[in-house]
Amino acid sequence: MSEPALHPDLAVVAPLLGTWSGDGAGSYPTIPSFRYAETVAFGHVGKPFLAYTQRTRALDEHGEAGLPLHAEAGYLRVPAAGRAEWVLAQPSGIAEIQEGTLEHVEGAVVLTFRSAQVALTSSAKSVTAVERTLRVEGDVLTYTLAMAAVGEGMTHHLRATLRRQS
Amino acid sequence: MSEPALHPDLAVVAPLLGTWSGDGAGSYPTIPSFRYAETVAFGHVGKPFLAYTQRTRALDEHGEAGLPLHAEAGYLRVPAAGRAEWVLAQPSGIAEIQEGTLEHVEGAVVLTFRSAQVALTSSAKSVTAVERTLRVEGDVLTYTLAMAAVGEGMTHHLRATLRRQS
Repeated sequence: MSEPALHPDLAVVAPLLGTWSGDGAGSYPTIPSFRYAETVAFGHVGKPFLAYTQRTRALDEHGEAGLPLHAEAGYLRVPAAGRAEWVLAQPSGIAEIQEGTLEHVEGAVVLTFRSAQVALTSSAKSVTAVERTLRVEGDVLTYTLAMAAVGEGMTHHLRATLRRQS
Repeated sequence: MSEPALHPDLAVVAPLLGTWSGDGAGSYPTIPSFRYAETVAFGHVGKPFLAYTQRTRALDEHGEAGLPLHAEAGYLRVPAAGRAEWVLAQPSGIAEIQEGTLEHVEGAVVLTFRSAQVALTSSAKSVTAVERTLRVEGDVLTYTLAMAAVGEGMTHHLRATLRRQS
Protein backbone atom coordinates (compact mmCIF):
# COMPACT_ATOMS: atom_id res chain seq x y z
CA MET A 1 0.00 0.00 0.00
CA SER A 2 1.38 3.42 -0.91
CA GLU A 3 2.27 5.92 1.80
CA PRO A 4 -0.62 8.34 2.36
CA ALA A 5 0.05 12.04 1.85
CA LEU A 6 0.73 13.99 5.02
CA HIS A 7 -2.33 15.93 6.20
CA PRO A 8 -1.69 19.64 5.50
CA ASP A 9 -2.23 20.56 9.19
CA LEU A 10 0.88 18.51 9.97
CA ALA A 11 3.32 20.17 7.56
CA VAL A 12 4.78 22.16 10.47
CA VAL A 13 5.50 18.98 12.46
CA ALA A 14 6.81 16.95 9.50
CA PRO A 15 10.37 17.29 10.92
CA LEU A 16 9.26 15.03 13.83
CA LEU A 17 8.32 12.10 11.56
CA GLY A 18 10.56 9.08 11.84
CA THR A 19 12.23 6.83 14.39
CA TRP A 20 14.71 8.35 16.82
CA SER A 21 17.07 6.77 19.31
CA GLY A 22 19.68 7.85 21.79
CA ASP A 23 20.01 8.20 25.50
CA GLY A 24 18.91 10.35 28.35
CA ALA A 25 19.29 11.08 32.04
CA GLY A 26 16.65 11.18 34.74
CA SER A 27 16.58 12.66 38.22
CA TYR A 28 14.01 13.64 40.80
CA PRO A 29 14.34 14.63 44.46
CA THR A 30 12.67 11.39 45.62
CA ILE A 31 14.67 8.83 43.56
CA PRO A 32 18.28 7.97 42.59
CA SER A 33 19.43 9.51 39.29
CA PHE A 34 19.52 7.14 36.33
CA ARG A 35 20.47 6.87 32.66
CA TYR A 36 18.39 5.31 29.92
CA ALA A 37 18.42 4.28 26.26
CA GLU A 38 15.37 5.43 24.33
CA THR A 39 13.53 4.92 21.08
CA VAL A 40 10.83 7.36 19.96
CA ALA A 41 8.70 7.12 16.82
CA PHE A 42 6.33 9.62 15.22
CA GLY A 43 4.18 8.29 12.37
CA HIS A 44 1.07 9.28 10.43
CA VAL A 45 -1.73 7.66 8.44
CA GLY A 46 -2.86 10.66 6.38
CA LYS A 47 -5.16 11.99 9.10
CA PRO A 48 -4.56 15.21 11.09
CA PHE A 49 -2.50 13.68 13.90
CA LEU A 50 0.90 12.13 14.49
CA ALA A 51 0.99 8.82 16.37
CA TYR A 52 3.73 8.76 19.02
CA THR A 53 5.37 5.85 20.83
CA GLN A 54 8.28 5.83 23.23
CA ARG A 55 10.22 3.10 25.01
CA THR A 56 13.20 3.32 27.33
CA ARG A 57 15.61 0.76 28.76
CA ALA A 58 17.93 1.07 31.72
CA LEU A 59 21.58 1.87 30.85
CA ASP A 60 24.27 0.37 33.08
CA GLU A 61 27.63 2.01 33.87
CA HIS A 62 29.14 0.47 30.70
CA GLY A 63 26.43 2.01 28.51
CA GLU A 64 24.73 -1.36 27.92
CA ALA A 65 20.94 -1.23 27.57
CA GLY A 66 19.10 -3.58 29.92
CA LEU A 67 15.55 -4.07 31.10
CA PRO A 68 12.59 -1.96 29.92
CA LEU A 69 11.99 1.09 32.10
CA HIS A 70 9.25 3.32 30.76
CA ALA A 71 6.90 3.44 27.80
CA GLU A 72 4.30 5.86 26.59
CA ALA A 73 2.03 6.26 23.61
CA GLY A 74 -0.15 9.03 22.30
CA TYR A 75 -1.12 11.42 19.57
CA LEU A 76 -0.03 14.92 18.61
CA ARG A 77 -2.37 17.40 16.96
CA VAL A 78 -1.95 20.88 15.50
CA PRO A 79 -5.39 22.44 15.99
CA ALA A 80 -4.33 25.94 14.90
CA ALA A 81 -1.24 27.78 13.66
CA GLY A 82 1.38 27.92 16.40
CA ARG A 83 -0.56 25.60 18.71
CA ALA A 84 -0.17 21.91 19.50
CA GLU A 85 -2.00 19.31 21.59
CA TRP A 86 -0.50 16.04 22.79
CA VAL A 87 -2.58 13.27 24.37
CA LEU A 88 -0.47 10.71 26.23
CA ALA A 89 -1.07 7.40 28.00
CA GLN A 90 1.49 5.86 30.36
CA PRO A 91 1.56 2.32 31.76
CA SER A 92 2.04 3.76 35.25
CA GLY A 93 -1.67 4.67 35.18
CA ILE A 94 -1.23 8.26 33.99
CA ALA A 95 -2.84 10.14 31.10
CA GLU A 96 -1.77 13.64 30.12
CA ILE A 97 -3.62 16.27 28.15
CA GLN A 98 -0.84 18.57 26.99
CA GLU A 99 -1.52 21.95 25.40
CA GLY A 100 1.30 24.00 23.96
CA THR A 101 2.92 26.19 21.39
CA LEU A 102 4.88 25.44 18.24
CA GLU A 103 7.60 27.83 17.13
CA HIS A 104 10.45 27.92 14.66
CA VAL A 105 13.62 29.02 16.44
CA GLU A 106 16.91 29.31 14.52
CA GLY A 107 16.13 26.44 12.14
CA ALA A 108 14.60 24.22 14.82
CA VAL A 109 10.98 23.28 15.48
CA VAL A 110 10.29 23.84 19.18
CA LEU A 111 7.18 22.58 20.97
CA THR A 112 6.54 23.74 24.53
CA PHE A 113 3.78 22.02 26.48
CA ARG A 114 2.19 22.23 29.87
CA SER A 115 -0.41 19.75 31.07
CA ALA A 116 -3.95 21.09 31.03
CA GLN A 117 -4.92 17.91 32.85
CA VAL A 118 -3.17 14.89 34.37
CA ALA A 119 -5.59 12.02 34.94
CA LEU A 120 -4.65 9.09 37.19
CA THR A 121 -5.90 5.57 37.84
CA SER A 122 -6.48 4.77 41.50
CA SER A 123 -3.19 2.83 41.74
CA ALA A 124 -1.02 5.53 40.07
CA LYS A 125 1.49 7.74 41.85
CA SER A 126 0.35 11.30 42.45
CA VAL A 127 1.45 13.42 39.46
CA THR A 128 -0.24 16.81 39.39
CA ALA A 129 1.38 18.62 36.43
CA VAL A 130 3.89 17.87 33.66
CA GLU A 131 5.83 20.27 31.43
CA ARG A 132 7.40 18.93 28.22
CA THR A 133 9.58 20.55 25.57
CA LEU A 134 10.49 18.92 22.28
CA ARG A 135 13.03 20.39 19.83
CA VAL A 136 13.89 18.97 16.41
CA GLU A 137 16.73 20.40 14.37
CA GLY A 138 17.56 18.27 11.34
CA ASP A 139 18.41 14.79 12.55
CA VAL A 140 18.57 15.64 16.26
CA LEU A 141 15.62 15.55 18.64
CA THR A 142 16.06 16.79 22.20
CA TYR A 143 13.43 16.89 24.90
CA THR A 144 13.00 17.81 28.51
CA LEU A 145 10.32 16.83 30.99
CA ALA A 146 9.59 18.41 34.37
CA MET A 147 6.84 17.36 36.73
CA ALA A 148 5.11 18.18 39.98
CA ALA A 149 4.60 14.82 41.68
CA VAL A 150 4.50 13.00 45.02
CA GLY A 151 4.42 16.27 46.94
CA GLU A 152 7.26 18.00 45.01
CA GLY A 153 6.71 21.22 43.05
CA MET A 154 7.50 21.48 39.32
CA THR A 155 10.99 19.92 39.10
CA HIS A 156 13.23 18.80 36.25
CA HIS A 157 12.97 15.02 35.67
CA LEU A 158 14.21 13.94 32.21
CA ARG A 159 16.46 15.17 29.41
CA ALA A 160 17.49 13.20 26.32
CA THR A 161 19.13 13.66 22.93
CA LEU A 162 18.04 11.32 20.14
CA ARG A 163 19.22 10.93 16.55
CA ARG A 164 17.10 10.11 13.54
CA GLN A 165 17.29 6.41 12.56
CA SER A 166 14.80 6.55 9.70
CA MET B 1 16.45 -11.26 22.26
CA SER B 2 14.36 -13.88 24.05
CA GLU B 3 10.74 -13.17 24.97
CA PRO B 4 10.53 -11.93 28.57
CA ALA B 5 8.42 -13.94 31.03
CA LEU B 6 4.92 -12.57 31.59
CA HIS B 7 4.68 -10.62 34.85
CA PRO B 8 2.69 -12.74 37.33
CA ASP B 9 0.09 -9.96 37.85
CA LEU B 10 -0.86 -10.44 34.19
CA ALA B 11 -1.54 -14.18 34.22
CA VAL B 12 -5.29 -13.49 34.37
CA VAL B 13 -5.14 -11.32 31.24
CA ALA B 14 -2.78 -13.61 29.28
CA PRO B 15 -5.72 -14.67 27.05
CA LEU B 16 -5.75 -11.09 25.64
CA LEU B 17 -2.14 -11.28 24.37
CA GLY B 18 -1.78 -11.34 20.60
CA THR B 19 -3.00 -9.60 17.46
CA TRP B 20 -6.71 -9.68 16.68
CA SER B 21 -8.64 -8.60 13.63
CA GLY B 22 -12.20 -8.55 12.42
CA ASP B 23 -14.95 -6.06 11.94
CA GLY B 24 -17.42 -4.00 13.85
CA ALA B 25 -20.37 -1.66 13.62
CA GLY B 26 -20.79 1.83 15.01
CA SER B 27 -23.80 4.00 15.65
CA TYR B 28 -24.69 7.06 17.67
CA PRO B 29 -27.75 9.32 17.68
CA THR B 30 -25.78 12.20 16.13
CA ILE B 31 -24.06 10.39 13.21
CA PRO B 32 -24.83 7.91 10.38
CA SER B 33 -24.22 4.25 11.30
CA PHE B 34 -21.02 2.75 9.88
CA ARG B 35 -19.01 -0.46 9.62
CA TYR B 36 -15.30 -0.84 10.14
CA ALA B 37 -12.40 -3.27 9.87
CA GLU B 38 -10.23 -3.41 12.98
CA THR B 39 -6.89 -4.65 14.24
CA VAL B 40 -6.15 -4.79 17.97
CA ALA B 41 -2.89 -5.87 19.59
CA PHE B 42 -2.04 -6.58 23.24
CA GLY B 43 1.66 -7.08 24.01
CA HIS B 44 3.94 -7.11 27.04
CA VAL B 45 7.61 -6.49 27.91
CA GLY B 46 7.81 -8.42 31.20
CA LYS B 47 6.51 -5.50 33.26
CA PRO B 48 3.11 -5.42 35.03
CA PHE B 49 1.10 -3.95 32.15
CA LEU B 50 -0.16 -4.89 28.71
CA ALA B 51 0.46 -2.42 25.88
CA TYR B 52 -2.62 -1.95 23.71
CA THR B 53 -2.98 -0.54 20.20
CA GLN B 54 -6.04 -0.36 17.98
CA ARG B 55 -6.64 0.79 14.41
CA THR B 56 -9.81 0.80 12.34
CA ARG B 57 -10.54 1.37 8.67
CA ALA B 58 -13.81 2.20 6.98
CA LEU B 59 -15.61 -0.78 5.38
CA ASP B 60 -17.59 -0.12 2.22
CA GLU B 61 -20.78 -1.93 1.16
CA HIS B 62 -18.67 -4.66 -0.50
CA GLY B 63 -16.74 -5.32 2.71
CA GLU B 64 -13.56 -3.69 1.35
CA ALA B 65 -11.43 -1.87 3.92
CA GLY B 66 -10.64 1.72 2.98
CA LEU B 67 -9.27 4.79 4.72
CA PRO B 68 -8.16 4.85 8.36
CA LEU B 69 -10.98 5.83 10.74
CA HIS B 70 -9.95 5.62 14.37
CA ALA B 71 -6.91 4.66 16.40
CA GLU B 72 -6.15 4.41 20.07
CA ALA B 73 -3.27 3.31 22.26
CA GLY B 74 -2.86 2.62 25.92
CA TYR B 75 -1.95 0.31 28.74
CA LEU B 76 -3.90 -2.20 30.81
CA ARG B 77 -3.00 -2.95 34.42
CA VAL B 78 -4.27 -5.46 36.99
CA PRO B 79 -3.68 -3.68 40.30
CA ALA B 80 -5.50 -6.28 42.44
CA ALA B 81 -7.36 -9.57 42.01
CA GLY B 82 -10.56 -9.01 40.05
CA ARG B 83 -9.71 -5.41 39.19
CA ALA B 84 -8.34 -3.79 36.05
CA GLU B 85 -7.25 -0.32 34.96
CA TRP B 86 -6.95 0.84 31.37
CA VAL B 87 -5.31 4.13 30.37
CA LEU B 88 -6.16 5.21 26.83
CA ALA B 89 -5.11 7.98 24.46
CA GLN B 90 -7.08 8.84 21.33
CA PRO B 91 -6.02 11.04 18.39
CA SER B 92 -9.31 12.92 18.66
CA GLY B 93 -7.85 14.65 21.74
CA ILE B 94 -9.35 12.32 24.34
CA ALA B 95 -7.72 10.42 27.21
CA GLU B 96 -9.63 7.90 29.29
CA ILE B 97 -8.89 6.58 32.76
CA GLN B 98 -10.89 3.36 32.88
CA GLU B 99 -11.44 1.41 36.10
CA GLY B 100 -13.14 -1.95 36.05
CA THR B 101 -13.56 -5.54 37.04
CA LEU B 102 -12.15 -8.78 35.67
CA GLU B 103 -14.21 -11.96 35.89
CA HIS B 104 -14.17 -15.44 34.48
CA VAL B 105 -17.58 -16.25 33.03
CA GLU B 106 -18.23 -19.64 31.41
CA GLY B 107 -14.68 -20.05 30.10
CA ALA B 108 -14.35 -16.43 29.01
CA VAL B 109 -12.36 -13.57 30.54
CA VAL B 110 -14.67 -10.58 30.87
CA LEU B 111 -13.48 -7.05 31.64
CA THR B 112 -16.09 -4.40 32.42
CA PHE B 113 -14.92 -0.79 32.60
CA ARG B 114 -16.38 2.61 33.29
CA SER B 115 -14.38 5.80 32.91
CA ALA B 116 -13.28 7.32 36.19
CA GLN B 117 -12.14 10.30 34.15
CA VAL B 118 -12.32 11.48 30.53
CA ALA B 119 -9.80 14.23 29.83
CA LEU B 120 -10.08 16.38 26.70
CA THR B 121 -7.87 18.74 24.75
CA SER B 122 -9.44 22.10 23.99
CA SER B 123 -10.22 21.08 20.38
CA ALA B 124 -11.81 17.69 21.27
CA LYS B 125 -15.51 16.89 21.07
CA SER B 126 -17.30 16.79 24.40
CA VAL B 127 -17.17 13.22 25.73
CA THR B 128 -18.14 12.97 29.38
CA ALA B 129 -18.11 9.21 30.14
CA VAL B 130 -17.23 5.96 28.37
CA GLU B 131 -18.17 2.38 29.24
CA ARG B 132 -16.18 -0.47 27.69
CA THR B 133 -16.52 -4.24 27.91
CA LEU B 134 -13.99 -6.71 26.57
CA ARG B 135 -14.58 -10.46 26.41
CA VAL B 136 -12.04 -13.06 25.29
CA GLU B 137 -13.03 -16.68 24.84
CA GLY B 138 -10.31 -18.72 23.15
CA ASP B 139 -9.55 -17.12 19.80
CA VAL B 140 -12.50 -14.70 19.80
CA LEU B 141 -12.43 -11.20 21.27
CA THR B 142 -15.64 -9.18 21.42
CA TYR B 143 -16.04 -5.71 22.78
CA THR B 144 -18.65 -3.04 23.23
CA LEU B 145 -18.30 0.68 23.84
CA ALA B 146 -20.96 3.11 25.01
CA MET B 147 -20.45 6.79 25.64
CA ALA B 148 -22.08 9.93 26.90
CA ALA B 149 -21.01 12.64 24.45
CA VAL B 150 -22.07 15.83 22.66
CA GLY B 151 -25.10 16.21 24.93
CA GLU B 152 -26.34 12.59 24.66
CA GLY B 153 -26.61 10.33 27.72
CA MET B 154 -24.76 7.00 27.95
CA THR B 155 -25.56 5.38 24.58
CA HIS B 156 -24.27 2.34 22.71
CA HIS B 157 -21.64 3.33 20.11
CA LEU B 158 -19.46 0.37 19.00
CA ARG B 159 -19.54 -3.42 18.89
CA ALA B 160 -16.98 -5.69 17.18
CA THR B 161 -15.93 -9.32 16.98
CA LEU B 162 -12.27 -10.03 16.31
CA ARG B 163 -10.36 -13.28 15.78
CA ARG B 164 -6.85 -14.07 16.95
CA GLN B 165 -4.25 -13.70 14.17
CA SER B 166 -1.21 -14.49 16.31
